[in-house]
Amino acid sequence: MPPLELRIPLPPWVDATVAWDRPLRADADRMRLAIALSRENVARGTGGPFGAAVFDDASGLPVAVGVNLVERLSNAVLHAEVVALMLAQAALGRFTLGGDDSPPHTLVTSCDPCAMCLGAALWSGVRRLVCGAGRADAMGIGFDEGPVFAESYRYLAERGVAVVHGVLRDEAAGVLADYHRAGRTIYNG
Amino acid sequence: MPPLELRIPLPPWVDATVAWDRPLRADADRMRLAIALSRENVARGTGGPFGAAVFDDASGLPVAVGVNLVERLSNAVLHAEVVALMLAQAALGRFTLGGDDSPPHTLVTSCDPCAMCLGAALWSGVRRLVCGAGRADAMGIGFDEGPVFAESYRYLAERGVAVVHGVLRDEAAGVLADYHRAGRTIYNG
Repeated sequence: MPPLELRIPLPPWVDATVAWDRPLRADADRMRLAIALSRENVARGTGGPFGAAVFDDASGLPVAVGVNLVERLSNAVLHAEVVALMLAQAALGRFTLGGDDSPPHTLVTSCDPCAMCLGAALWSGVRRLVCGAGRADAMGIGFDEGPVFAESYRYLAERGVAVVHGVLRDEAAGVLADYHRAGRTIYNG
Repeated sequence: MPPLELRIPLPPWVDATVAWDRPLRADADRMRLAIALSRENVARGTGGPFGAAVFDDASGLPVAVGVNLVERLSNAVLHAEVVALMLAQAALGRFTLGGDDSPPHTLVTSCDPCAMCLGAALWSGVRRLVCGAGRADAMGIGFDEGPVFAESYRYLAERGVAVVHGVLRDEAAGVLADYHRAGRTIYNG
């Protein structure tokens, strides 16, 4: 019989990597957390070189974090952004992180989102999307990013999602370069 | 403490709705299953009017199915296509449904995929994507479909994913129209 239920656990090391009670307000400080998650995910052997976090912009606190779990959980949907967004919605018990009765939320990701994650960010209700490494950095080592175009970002902007690219780009791209040099799996290449 | 694990169960009625040992080879026959799932998801009150299924094109058998679980599980990522793809990969224990050592797989969905699901389909390794209702049918009742353009489909075609639109479109769109007439939740409108 096919599986009728999925379990998606974060790797055990993740919890201790995040200071859940420490507000982070600057994009660069938040990006350091996303990059640390991406680097640690490779170092611990639990997945690809991508990390993400969702922040409550009122409190500055991280609501949830994600790392790439594609290989670990045999699930091509589990990019870092998707994991962080799903866990953030679970944390709040609601399918949107937006709405008039909610503080605004920001998704911070160590790399420009692929087509799937761009769509997931739009549906998530976050008001801002902050990116580290660029699409070219990911494509340059063989990861595909999918059909994302300039008009894709315009579509988000028209719906009230602000996007910031290139925050600590060199540091974020460095994790990708290290992963590539180590000869690790490049899926969907 | 934020949740560190997700559980994603299908609604209990789904299993009995699928004849797991019955091969379906024609697109229309497969679409009838996707539409039945979309209709039943509304009738049972377990979610939005969308259904999907992944088929093994060698055996013709359904590998996994999905229904929209956004409201039920407070998770904006859980569109029918994403649920079906994640469960199919869990069924096979691999993050791709493609590759030289795998039979080809097809994703059948009761409605043209949104931007997120189009990306998920690309990463899933399916070789074909078969759609029922059109983007205009979904947008027409207030669902957003996100940044999907003609060049998005070209991007998939160039990577070996064939796409068929409009299979039993009227029947599939009818489920959307019924949902709208009943005044049910249109999220991300």
